[in-house]
Amino acid sequence: MSDAPVRSGRRARGGGGAARRAERTAVSIETAKYIERNIPNYEVLNEEALQVIEANAETVLAEIGVNFVDNPAALERWKAAGAEVDGERVRIPRGLARKLCETAPSTFTQHARNPERNVVIGGDSLVLAPVYGPPFVRDAEGGRRYATIADFEKFVKLGYMSKWLHHSGGTVCEPTDIAVNKRHLDMLLAHMVYSDKPFMGAVTEPVRAQDSVEMCEILFGKEFVQENTVMTSLININSPLTFDSTMMGALEVYAANNQACIISPFIVGGAMAPVSVAGTLTQTLAEVLAGVAYSQLVRPGAPVIFGTMVTSIDMNSGAPTFGTPEAEHITYGAGQLARRMGLPYRSAGSFCGSKLPDAQAGYETGSSLKMGLLSGVNFMLHACGWLEGGMVASFEKFVMDADQLGTLHHFARGVDMSENGQAMDAIAEVGPGGHYLGCAHTQANFKTAFWRTDLLDYKPFETWDEEGARDTQTLATARVKKMLETYQQPALDPEIEARLRAYVADKKASMPDAFG
Amino acid sequence: MSDAPVRSGRRARGGGGAARRAERTAVSIETAKYIERNIPNYEVLNEEALQVIEANAETVLAEIGVNFVDNPAALERWKAAGAEVDGERVRIPRGLARKLCETAPSTFTQHARNPERNVVIGGDSLVLAPVYGPPFVRDAEGGRRYATIADFEKFVKLGYMSKWLHHSGGTVCEPTDIAVNKRHLDMLLAHMVYSDKPFMGAVTEPVRAQDSVEMCEILFGKEFVQENTVMTSLININSPLTFDSTMMGALEVYAANNQACIISPFIVGGAMAPVSVAGTLTQTLAEVLAGVAYSQLVRPGAPVIFGTMVTSIDMNSGAPTFGTPEAEHITYGAGQLARRMGLPYRSAGSFCGSKLPDAQAGYETGSSLKMGLLSGVNFMLHACGWLEGGMVASFEKFVMDADQLGTLHHFARGVDMSENGQAMDAIAEVGPGGHYLGCAHTQANFKTAFWRTDLLDYKPFETWDEEGARDTQTLATARVKKMLETYQQPALDPEIEARLRAYVADKKASMPDAFG
Repeated sequence: MSDAPVRSGRRARGGGGAARRAERTAVSIETAKYIERNIPNYEVLNEEALQVIEANAETVLAEIGVNFVDNPAALERWKAAGAEVDGERVRIPRGLARKLCETAPSTFTQHARNPERNVVIGGDSLVLAPVYGPPFVRDAEGGRRYATIADFEKFVKLGYMSKWLHHSGGTVCEPTDIAVNKRHLDMLLAHMVYSDKPFMGAVTEPVRAQDSVEMCEILFGKEFVQENTVMTSLININSPLTFDSTMMGALEVYAANNQACIISPFIVGGAMAPVSVAGTLTQTLAEVLAGVAYSQLVRPGAPVIFGTMVTSIDMNSGAPTFGTPEAEHITYGAGQLARRMGLPYRSAGSFCGSKLPDAQAGYETGSSLKMGLLSGVNFMLHACGWLEGGMVASFEKFVMDADQLGTLHHFARGVDMSENGQAMDAIAEVGPGGHYLGCAHTQANFKTAFWRTDLLDYKPFETWDEEGARDTQTLATARVKKMLETYQQPALDPEIEARLRAYVADKKASMPDAFG
Repeated sequence: MSDAPVRSGRRARGGGGAARRAERTAVSIETAKYIERNIPNYEVLNEEALQVIEANAETVLAEIGVNFVDNPAALERWKAAGAEVDGERVRIPRGLARKLCETAPSTFTQHARNPERNVVIGGDSLVLAPVYGPPFVRDAEGGRRYATIADFEKFVKLGYMSKWLHHSGGTVCEPTDIAVNKRHLDMLLAHMVYSDKPFMGAVTEPVRAQDSVEMCEILFGKEFVQENTVMTSLININSPLTFDSTMMGALEVYAANNQACIISPFIVGGAMAPVSVAGTLTQTLAEVLAGVAYSQLVRPGAPVIFGTMVTSIDMNSGAPTFGTPEAEHITYGAGQLARRMGLPYRSAGSFCGSKLPDAQAGYETGSSLKMGLLSGVNFMLHACGWLEGGMVASFEKFVMDADQLGTLHHFARGVDMSENGQAMDAIAEVGPGGHYLGCAHTQANFKTAFWRTDLLDYKPFETWDEEGARDTQTLATARVKKMLETYQQPALDPEIEARLRAYVADKKASMPDAFG
């Protein structure tokens, strides 16, 4: 079973009613295995459309080209590979970028410090990671406010305890109370100490990527890091068609160290890409082809992911919108393009434009999460906690979304066509006018047959009403509180933890604070 | 364009700024054409699984059979057709039911009194109709309460004014203030007078189906009704495998009059069907085969729809659950089975178990609506307004869902691969590092490029906060109020209206009130 729970640590011993009650009321610390799909993908583009888009992307690379800004070494690499370099503009002859991409692996394993948490990225897998980047947090009690490192640590703990979340993520929120040039150290330390799931490295400066590698060398051992992928980091492309030296510098560090990168156009359709789906897909493909090819120029075989981050712009207000059908077309189409390149695919997430974890958030997020599953996404960043167009990490929405991720696990199982699944004996046993609740087949299967929420309300109206007529946010507030109260840190060698803390302290002492 | 708006009635004449302002602030009374898909369906079952389920369904019909209860005429019809009749049990030899189903049309047109509102049901079409059957209504101001005919009329008006809703539905809520044996008359009158969209007939007694036909003969003319389908009505099967005489009696009336029926197992998985997906699909297919075959015994060629209404049971509380992955598997699979029979397909809807139009409602409904589109549903009952497992028709959720239905229209358009859609000129014009907002392609296309909500919040945080930090329900309350305030009755020949009202008054006077 692809989503069989893997238990974290040891179970408390002891028997009797008290122990069983404690188990029933305990917050789960199980983690499901990453999803392995037993279902087809949904494909919105036909073969002809795919070929047109692929040919157009080659035309964009060959005739318009891409800019590699402030990066003479990159221009040299491109020149040596056969591209035409004119100032910062790189024009890539038809077929060259796709050819260079061939050395990128179609699947790779990202290791976690707890080997049971290792994830496979690519093929039929889907790995779920939390929201990335919000400067604000929100909860029902405290409202919307700037994020701090204390908030960050809470999110890491919630992620660790979320059964359907496989990955601890990266900048789950921006710890704005720590200097910009130092906060990556505290964020990495939190992921390493408070969780045992895999995580992401810093990308905001090449030197911070190097710090990330060095901290991983403490956590995993130097040799292990050189031989294995232990970070997957997010490299955004400055759409349209621009690769800046900060992000490329981080990519260079990670690729050189065999660490994985998501190479991801960040697109608000109508602003950074054409206002049409086919045009946006063409530009996206051109950008990913150039970015992935460049990663392979740095180190052939470096693990990379075909990334797509799509929203469309509301032409009345200029605001980005989420959960819209055009963004869905792009997400489905980009998945097809990624599979044709044989690359792992990153897209979708708990996207919504809503300011609150309300019905709008539910509609937009529910649609986006399911789309991520059906479009063949292999790495879903932002899979929980996203609010207000990504400006806010919401505590309540984090646990609401994390609960919904269970539906993706169950859907991905596909349909059981075994004899037990066919249930012909049950149909014969019950017969016309009968009832299945008591039949043998139901008794044997009911515990595992249906996905069940850990959060949403299924109670009879009267019970629900007597218990305070709570809405989803109110239920989620209680769940966040309970999870944080019952959180227990996963075991970590005290010597390694001490070395990590010393590394962070030394680094922070070695430079003045920089803000902004 | 399949979803080009069709304007209702005449536009007010007049020019100048005041007229333009009035137009901008007016609640739209456009109605989109029913959806014609330009996208593939999603298919969760492979060919082998489909064949297993089809063979198993034939086994169920041949070896277990179905019950036709209190219906000697039906038993006679089955016997004459070659089935083995034993008491009320009808065993149908392999292949016979499927053979009988062949005379049912794959596509039919349901006529509306306004021909611009006619809908095609079958093929690539998707027709959207509101919630059906709740005894309660809810809104933010009045809370949860028994539904009345006044509520019913409000829902018909909201449906008439909802741009993305093609159909006025049937029992949008139960008018519990009117006697059970009379309320169908008031409901039909409301659909006929307050809307010009197509509607459904009564099924709770055969005589009420006959009343429905007679009222349609007043509205459309007697000859027109005999030659055209003007009602699509909901015939539920008493799963497992039981056809009661009330529902079959209504089916007999409608089929004899060439009126359409949805033949629909109503299944709570684990209670009325096996706890497994494949088992539920087998039973569903057996039931639909028997029901559709029976409709063709009554009148070969009578229009019918392959219906599936699926929820699963929460094995902890016994409550029905919605938006679950197992129900989605069944919905996708049943769509495949329906297409293999060449029948129109009914399933999905704005399903949720939530008591409030909150995030839970959004997650569950968003997922279910999108699934309805991708599973090839042709007639989606319950497409808006469903709350609390169908116990409640929610005013706010009605307009929230109705707004979301716009996303289905836009998604169904598919990807525009025209030269304009490819946007190569735009990519060349903007180039690396540029911006698309001002480019010619964006200017020419932005108005129609992206779906835009009429309800949800896309505003900047500060604006939203100053305007009262409203959640989705609060925005919806305001929209309901505004729509009802600006509602205008579509024109209807006063003589026809008078005859309809006289028919209803006479019928009601002819019998005592019956409640319960």
